[in-house]
Amino acid sequence: MIYDGQNQVDSWEEVLLIYRSALRKVNTKLEILNDEFQHVHRYNPIEHMKSRIKTSESIVKKLKRKGYESTIENMVEHVDDIAGIRIICSFSSDIYQIAEMLVNQNDIKVLSIKDYIKNPKASGYKSYHMIITVPVFLSDKVVDTKVEIQIRTVAMDFWASLEHKIHYKFEGNAPEHIKEELVECARMVSDLDARMLSLNTEVQKLLDS
Amino acid sequence: MIYDGQNQVDSWEEVLLIYRSALRKVNTKLEILNDEFQHVHRYNPIEHMKSRIKTSESIVKKLKRKGYESTIENMVEHVDDIAGIRIICSFSSDIYQIAEMLVNQNDIKVLSIKDYIKNPKASGYKSYHMIITVPVFLSDKVVDTKVEIQIRTVAMDFWASLEHKIHYKFEGNAPEHIKEELVECARMVSDLDARMLSLNTEVQKLLDS
Amino acid sequence: MIYDGQNQVDSWEEVLLIYRSALRKVNTKLEILNDEFQHVHRYNPIEHMKSRIKTSESIVKKLKRKGYESTIENMVEHVDDIAGIRIICSFSSDIYQIAEMLVNQNDIKVLSIKDYIKNPKASGYKSYHMIITVPVFLSDKVVDTKVEIQIRTVAMDFWASLEHKIHYKFEGNAPEHIKEELVECARMVSDLDARMLSLNTEVQKLLDS
Amino acid sequence: MIYDGQNQVDSWEEVLLIYRSALRKVNTKLEILNDEFQHVHRYNPIEHMKSRIKTSESIVKKLKRKGYESTIENMVEHVDDIAGIRIICSFSSDIYQIAEMLVNQNDIKVLSIKDYIKNPKASGYKSYHMIITVPVFLSDKVVDTKVEIQIRTVAMDFWASLEHKIHYKFEGNAPEHIKEELVECARMVSDLDARMLSLNTEVQKLLDS
Repeated sequence: MIYDGQNQVDSWEEVLLIYRSALRKVNTKLEILNDEFQHVHRYNPIEHMKSRIKTSESIVKKLKRKGYESTIENMVEHVDDIAGIRIICSFSSDIYQIAEMLVNQNDIKVLSIKDYIKNPKASGYKSYHMIITVPVFLSDKVVDTKVEIQIRTVAMDFWASLEHKIHYKFEGNAPEHIKEELVECARMVSDLDARMLSLNTEVQKLLDS
Repeated sequence: MIYDGQNQVDSWEEVLLIYRSALRKVNTKLEILNDEFQHVHRYNPIEHMKSRIKTSESIVKKLKRKGYESTIENMVEHVDDIAGIRIICSFSSDIYQIAEMLVNQNDIKVLSIKDYIKNPKASGYKSYHMIITVPVFLSDKVVDTKVEIQIRTVAMDFWASLEHKIHYKFEGNAPEHIKEELVECARMVSDLDARMLSLNTEVQKLLDS
Repeated sequence: MIYDGQNQVDSWEEVLLIYRSALRKVNTKLEILNDEFQHVHRYNPIEHMKSRIKTSESIVKKLKRKGYESTIENMVEHVDDIAGIRIICSFSSDIYQIAEMLVNQNDIKVLSIKDYIKNPKASGYKSYHMIITVPVFLSDKVVDTKVEIQIRTVAMDFWASLEHKIHYKFEGNAPEHIKEELVECARMVSDLDARMLSLNTEVQKLLDS
Repeated sequence: MIYDGQNQVDSWEEVLLIYRSALRKVNTKLEILNDEFQHVHRYNPIEHMKSRIKTSESIVKKLKRKGYESTIENMVEHVDDIAGIRIICSFSSDIYQIAEMLVNQNDIKVLSIKDYIKNPKASGYKSYHMIITVPVFLSDKVVDTKVEIQIRTVAMDFWASLEHKIHYKFEGNAPEHIKEELVECARMVSDLDARMLSLNTEVQKLLDS
């Protein structure tokens, strides 16, 4: 949500309502695109989706880390992933297609993109992130609301679940050999994704010819 | 869907996809409005909702009755209830509030309204009907798509289910005494709705004072 | 859940897990019966269902009213409606059919029945209540778990929602004229249900003859 | 469904109803086990599930291949996967735990097990298959009904989707180099699964010590 003086937000409960509405709306858009893709290309690019609202604890923690007080204004302004949707697809080529289809819709604005697939994190993390806004229609106003979209393959997602667990359990200080092993697993994930994509492309070419 | 030459619709399957998408979109809008209403007024105006796509058989039948050939153009042009949503609420006063909240959204256009609550059918049928259009975002175009909205109370809905069954089973030619009995039941439904609404209003007044 | 020494229940969280599982199981049984009924009789006796777990606040309040300490043993022993399912159907004749179909299943035990349809409460309340137990299969044990089933018509349910709201808002002490008005509405509900059932039976007879 | 003379099945529609009911029941059992596992071990072994009823076309094709006529008796007797559930989990160690938890339930009978994880197919296919029966309670009888359970990791599932597509598109006669590439990908999947499981076990050991 792009916060401004006019759209006075009077309580955290109303803010949550708005983010929840934004999630519903983006979910619906993605279901429609997936149906259309299935109709045209005869396969579903979206394997499955998960959406979540960030817990108040995590939001407060993030504000603290960034040096802001815990006010509703600061949450809305400085925490971009209060509403989040994760899209899991089969092949890395699907990722860019889904992102493009979503971004082309004229009521969606893209605030920022982080392409951790072209530029993976040091940990080995790969995923495509976007912060977008979507208009939420309330009975007396329209509120442009921020949603973080993460798009990744099933293999990247499998790796990310384990990495998240390790990061969380060791509070960011995992032993060095564990970190190295994770990086090695990330490399295997990338190799598998590349090999499977190339096989899929080869098969497609044979069938089209 | 407002059909025109540019948005060439190439197959019935694609048309269905678009109507299904419109249903999803209106459903999402109504869920958001219900949440907001619950937040502000502490009760849900929408008791429950049902949505459906008309079967091809019914569409063809309707076109025939209206004297049109069974082409996709004619379906899209002349059958307004291919996509339909029925909203069931507790009190008749909720009906107009829901209708207004929906219609106020700036991407919705109202094509027509039939208020069978103020002007019930001879059979006794009461319900509030609107034909609206909602824009469906596809990957390469936006299609304004027609959806029929029916709003009624739980008691009206109970009556309408029985009336539908009778109409369908007797193919429109129910015996006279059955029709009369239906009209009498419709009167009882209206009395009950009026009495319950008045009790609810009275209770609300006592609590607010 | 029938509590005994062998099936030691060690925490409230586990107890909730068991009640939630019992709800899932009874819901599944009812969906299966509804499907079968639809297959054989060509109509769904179950209009819709709602299930809920009682909140801890309500459970503690009920124990207090009954003069028991708030221990897990007392909850499991003395609160019969921790897990509850409400079944809404069209006609009062459906109520007894659904109850019988459920009770006939050989893994369900009926602990008690309260027929507030034959014997309405003074308030005008009508509904059919059963306390049953259903076995929940956990990885190392089977726990017979209590579930309260309430079965009523759409019209009874409409009335009960308003009565509940009034009872709750006035904390049981609604003004006399409000209570009388409620009783009058309950009478109208019963008349409507009776008239609609009789019309439905008449229609059925005409069609079968 | 174990077919016998007494439980005469009079139509394909009723048979489908029974298989659908069996799917619902096994799904409910798995959701309950997943909840319990989450409660005890603080993680969900089941990443997600998919269930399906085999299409009539596939059933008829399978019967033909096996040399049987297309009768309902033959379908029920000779096609074991009319109702199927696929369970996707993170680690290969989860697979055996889920299988054991399910099989331990005293109303489930195991008819057969095929462990394609210990003994992969020549194609590289890995998955754990069981044919079980579960009792379905109808209003007048109880029918033991067959369900095929497939359990595999996310990585195995990713591979299996591509393999299925290739097998289907080339009607079983994929070019040799495609088949070899698939086997190579299957090897990479196994390596990744083994490495991730070993990392997960190592992490768990460090945290427990």
